[in-house]
This record gives sequence, structure tokens and C-alpha cells, in this order.
Amino acid sequence: MSPTVAPLSHFYAVIPAGGIGSRLWPLSRAEAPKFLHDLAGTGSSLLRTTWERLTPLAGADRIMVVTGRAHRAAVERQIPELSDANVVLETEPRDSSAAIGLAAAILERREPGVVIGSFAADHVIRGARFFDMAVREAVVAAQTGVIATIGIRPTEPAIGFGYIRATASANIDGAASTLTVDEFVEKPTQATAEKYLASGEYFWNAGMFIAKASVLLDALAETQPEMHAGLQELAEAWDTPDRGHVVDRVWPRLTKIALDYSVAEPAAAQGRMVVVPGEFDWDDVGDFASIAKLHSSGHKTDLAILGEGARVLSDSANGIVFADSGRTIALVGVTDIVVVDTPDALLVTTTAHAQRVKNVVDALRLAGRDDVL
Amino acid sequence: MSPTVAPLSHFYAVIPAGGIGSRLWPLSRAEAPKFLHDLAGTGSSLLRTTWERLTPLAGADRIMVVTGRAHRAAVERQIPELSDANVVLETEPRDSSAAIGLAAAILERREPGVVIGSFAADHVIRGARFFDMAVREAVVAAQTGVIATIGIRPTEPAIGFGYIRATASANIDGAASTLTVDEFVEKPTQATAEKYLASGEYFWNAGMFIAKASVLLDALAETQPEMHAGLQELAEAWDTPDRGHVVDRVWPRLTKIALDYSVAEPAAAQGRMVVVPGEFDWDDVGDFASIAKLHSSGHKTDLAILGEGARVLSDSANGIVFADSGRTIALVGVTDIVVVDTPDALLVTTTAHAQRVKNVVDALRLAGRDDVL
Repeated sequence: MSPTVAPLSHFYAVIPAGGIGSRLWPLSRAEAPKFLHDLAGTGSSLLRTTWERLTPLAGADRIMVVTGRAHRAAVERQIPELSDANVVLETEPRDSSAAIGLAAAILERREPGVVIGSFAADHVIRGARFFDMAVREAVVAAQTGVIATIGIRPTEPAIGFGYIRATASANIDGAASTLTVDEFVEKPTQATAEKYLASGEYFWNAGMFIAKASVLLDALAETQPEMHAGLQELAEAWDTPDRGHVVDRVWPRLTKIALDYSVAEPAAAQGRMVVVPGEFDWDDVGDFASIAKLHSSGHKTDLAILGEGARVLSDSANGIVFADSGRTIALVGVTDIVVVDTPDALLVTTTAHAQRVKNVVDALRLAGRDDVL
Repeated sequence: MSPTVAPLSHFYAVIPAGGIGSRLWPLSRAEAPKFLHDLAGTGSSLLRTTWERLTPLAGADRIMVVTGRAHRAAVERQIPELSDANVVLETEPRDSSAAIGLAAAILERREPGVVIGSFAADHVIRGARFFDMAVREAVVAAQTGVIATIGIRPTEPAIGFGYIRATASANIDGAASTLTVDEFVEKPTQATAEKYLASGEYFWNAGMFIAKASVLLDALAETQPEMHAGLQELAEAWDTPDRGHVVDRVWPRLTKIALDYSVAEPAAAQGRMVVVPGEFDWDDVGDFASIAKLHSSGHKTDLAILGEGARVLSDSANGIVFADSGRTIALVGVTDIVVVDTPDALLVTTTAHAQRVKNVVDALRLAGRDDVL
């Protein structure tokens, strides 16, 4: 899609590309994490799709990817356009506060006053025009000094996502639909999720944060002063020959905490957090059930078959098959089935139990089976 | 097991080793049919186990194996003791009347008056002592000129087997438990199977036939005179240099019909068929459900895991996994599951649908996928 309007000025997009996606084992592995896979069936990886979605907003040379050292080559294969200056390599995963905080500190130093927007590398979005509109509005809001998020209008009482409650307009010029965040709430029970949906006051928390880099860093300074100091030290050394040894010394000591807890929730409690309603389809494709749903267009009667050269025979009406081994796969009389067939590991589960796949990964780790993790 | 008594005199065992076992795909293949697999978990193939079960009865040099040309090498690997004289190779499968009839014709010519007993190569029997007793009694009965079968005392209202009704003693000296067969009946419905079980008058038809070779041949002559003539022609040439071209000419023209229809049912109608009750455990392991049951010792709460070096993680309480590919297999939240993992094909079904696996084989054949059949 070509941009309908020019990229935003003073805006930088940040894509934290970390996280293996344990609930997507054995498709997602340490060496081939979720964001490198084409889970939406678009022909591109989730990372590439994310990058292409952000290009009209930020410009191709103003998107920074924060990822693990091990994924550098794969990321560069996915995004050949990426310049070295736009790649931040983690020596080890330190969660989203450190990842996004470091990007903020580097970018603020390079370009004081810049607004950054952080968007996960491994989500699926349909409705690029509405995404574009929401980000543009969030950037307008962020320029007033608040921290903005994009909340997804719920379409069902999902229990797999956190929610954001927001009832009152934030009264920001040029950001008419933006609301003040009342609170972030954790993943609800089914009954609570139904109440949230019915109330119309709740949005799904898609983990998108848009703010001035300086505002994010100030918020981190309040709740995580040591991390803030470490990030400043890293940013100061970043574009110098000192980067390597400062990273080795400072990065491993940064507290592992999600930006939701270090920044978003405290800011919401202070009334400094706003939410732009997102009217696009969004999914974090966290497990095989959500991928199955994605590929059945919401219908419950399709068996989704993914994988190149898949040879699948099935009388099963629903579920999902990833055929990544080239083998012939036959399904007989199984419903809501999930089969993930890779060259060295096979998973068989059901959409109802897809969340429990993480337990397998835990068990394999305990058993020292890093060869298949 | 060493024989407790001497082998029977004037007795020859015949093992028809044919049939692929379509309902056991992808474990059982054209190149590696059911009888070559260790489905009972004994450490030996079903064929080898059958041969060892018969050795105390017939003697190691008096067991004939009738099998396809393609399986000759595999059969000889399983039974190195087998002499060339005891191997009958089919150029193509012509069903059990031709296979057993040819063995009968060859053996009658070599040893007039011999009693033969035919026992499938791919069944599972537990309780060798009772099997031994039943065969010995059947041979005594057969020497009077009747055709004997061994009927399995049903332990449940199975619908996957044919039944034999027998109510009256055959009054044969030395064969006290032997009954006259009233009739053979086809696989029943569930309700009928329950009536059969409750009546105590029915046995499972295990396809074991014991008779003088001459009696079997005479019975065939009555119902299948052309086949009988062909078999005599084959037998006459068998131990001569003419075997090859006579086989090529005669064998492909023999009618394909099961011995049950050509001999057993007509003989029963004439009152010339008797049944010896078999008090041993028997299963034809026709599908994965029966293998699962076999390995759970009848309990419904065991997941059976078969395969060398199987690496299976499972929270599933029941079902069966064949791990033949060396891959790691994880099962999450699936019940009554059947997973058969081979290097080039994967089957996922449930014990309740195990019978339908044959449909997959039919579909693959239609699709020309002989590479995995």
C-alpha cells in the first residue's frame, strides 16, 4: 500500500522484535521466533508486514528494530532496507521497558523532541487505513506530552488480552476520538470479559505506545530510576566506539519489566495516559487457536492448512494444520484439531487446549531438550 | 516357550502371510505389511510370533509360509529357519482359498493324508497353552474327516468380527469340547453382538481352519471346481522344473475368494464343520483402536507409546502413539488419540474413528500416491 499522505514529521517507529512465542511451538523456536513466520498467510513474515504497515507513517528510514543478536541476519533478510543505525541488538532479552527505553534514549539523543511509537513485530492487523488514522491521531496526542496507546475496539469477550478502560474524552485538539485512560486491567474471566464488552467502556490492550521519547524516559525515571540511568549511559555510548563494552556492562543489569507496568499503568494512575480507539482488526496470534480463527475468517467450519507444498488429506471440518515437513498428513475424524508438523518435532492438540502448548516448552526446557526449542 | 509335549504327527501348519492391513496405514504399507510389525510389543513381528507359536505343534520344519514375492526377503529375515520347500510365493494376491488351497495341494502330494492347520500371520494371541490345547483337539477332530475351526470365546460384544454359532457337541472321541458348527454369521450390529454374547452360543471367527488337506481340496472341488483343477495342476508342477511357467499361467486365473465362503460356510451347511472353543485371548489387531486396547491391557486410561527411541510428551490419558520417525512428539489435551508418525507420512485420528483409516488409503490410491502406500 502506498501512503495516502506524507509520513509524519518528528516521528520514529520502533519495532521490538523479541519473544519466541512459546505457545506456538514447534513452529516458533528460539532460532525462528514467531515474528519471522508468515502466520497471517500474506506471503510475508509478521515482522515484514509490521515494517510495511509503518513505512507510510514513519518513512522507510525512520523505523528502528530492536531484536536479539541471534536474529540479526534473519531480520536483515526480512528487511533489506534496514540501515545499521536503525538496528538495536540485544545481547540478551531484558523485556520491553529496556528494549523500548533504549530505543527512546538513542532516538531522543539523535533527535531531541522526537515522538516514538512502539509496535510489536508479531501481531496481525487488518485494516491498514484505520491503523494509519489511529497512529496519526495518537502522534497528535503525544505531542501534547501525554502517553498514548491504541486500544482495539473489542469484537468478542476475549479472555486472552488485557483491557483498557476509558470513558471520558481527553479533549485534545486534533485528536477528537482520544479518551483519557481510567485504568489498565489484566486478562479477565469470561463473565468479566462479557461485562466489559457490553459496557462499551473497554478496549483491548494491544501494547502499542506512542509518546515523546523524553516523556517515556521521564516516566521511566520516576518508577525505574536505575534503569533510566543505565539507558542514558547506553544511549550516550551508542553512536561511539564505546558501545560494545558499555552494552556488555550495563545491559545485563537492567531490570526485566514490561513497559505496561513501568510506564503505562503508573501514567494512567496520574491521568497522563490516553487511548485512541482503533477500529481495525487486530490479533496478537498468541496461540494456534487464534491462528486457526484468523484463517477461517471467523467461521468455525474451516480447516486451515498452512505450509509450502502441504499434502494434507482430511475429513476434519475445523482446526489448523501446519505442514512444514513435506510429509503426507492424514486427519481422520478429528475436530478442532491443531497439527504442527515440522522436520524434528510434531505437536497435536486442539484449539481449546492451544494455550497449554507453553507447558510442553517448559517440560522440554526442564528435560534439557534445547535441540527442539 | 518349549513344547510340553511332542509335535503332532502327520500335521503341517500353514501361515498365509498376505494382506497389507489398510486400516493400519501409514504403519502398514505395501512394502512393510502388518505381519512384519511388532504390534503386540513382544519384541518380535506378528509373523515371527505366529511361527514360534506353531513350532511346538508342528515342528520347526513343518510350517509352510504362503506370501507375496515382494515379501520373500523380509519373511526370510524374520524366520531364518524357513527352508525353501516351506515357502510358497504368490506372484500376486489371490485371496485365502487359493493361498491355503495351494498349500493343501502341495502338502497332500508330498505327504498323503496330512492334516493341515491354517493360521493368519498377523493376529495376536495370548495364552499359548490354551492355543496349543485347542489346536491339538482340532487336529484330532480333523482326522475324522471334518473341517475344524477354532472359535474364540467372546469377552465383549465386538462388532468387528464374524461369529460362529455352535450349540451341540460334535461327539468326537478325544475332542470332548468340540461342537458342530450351526452357522457362520457376518459382523453383527451392536445389539446383535450383545445378544450373541449373552446367549453363550457364539464364538468369534478367527479364521483358523484345520482339516485333512484332502478334505479341504474335496470341499473346494465341490464349490470351486476350476480353482481345484488349477491348484492340482500347480501342485503337480510345484516340485519340478515346470513350477515357474505353470504358476505364471495358472495362478493369475484363480478366483479370488476367501476360504470362509468357498469352504467353511458350505461345509457348515452340510454339518461337516466343527468348532473347538478357544479359551485364549485373541485379536486380529485390525485397526489402531484394537492395538491401543491391546497395549492398555484393557484399561481405558493408558496412552500406549510404541516405536524405538520414541520421544513423546503427553498429557493425554489414552490412545496410542507410534513414533517411528525419531521426532519429538507432543500431545496436549487430546483424548482417545491415535498418532502414527512415520518418516514420510503422518496419521492423526481417534480410536473411535480408527476403522475409517482405510478411506485414507483409498483416497491416496485414487490420487496416485503409491509412494506412501
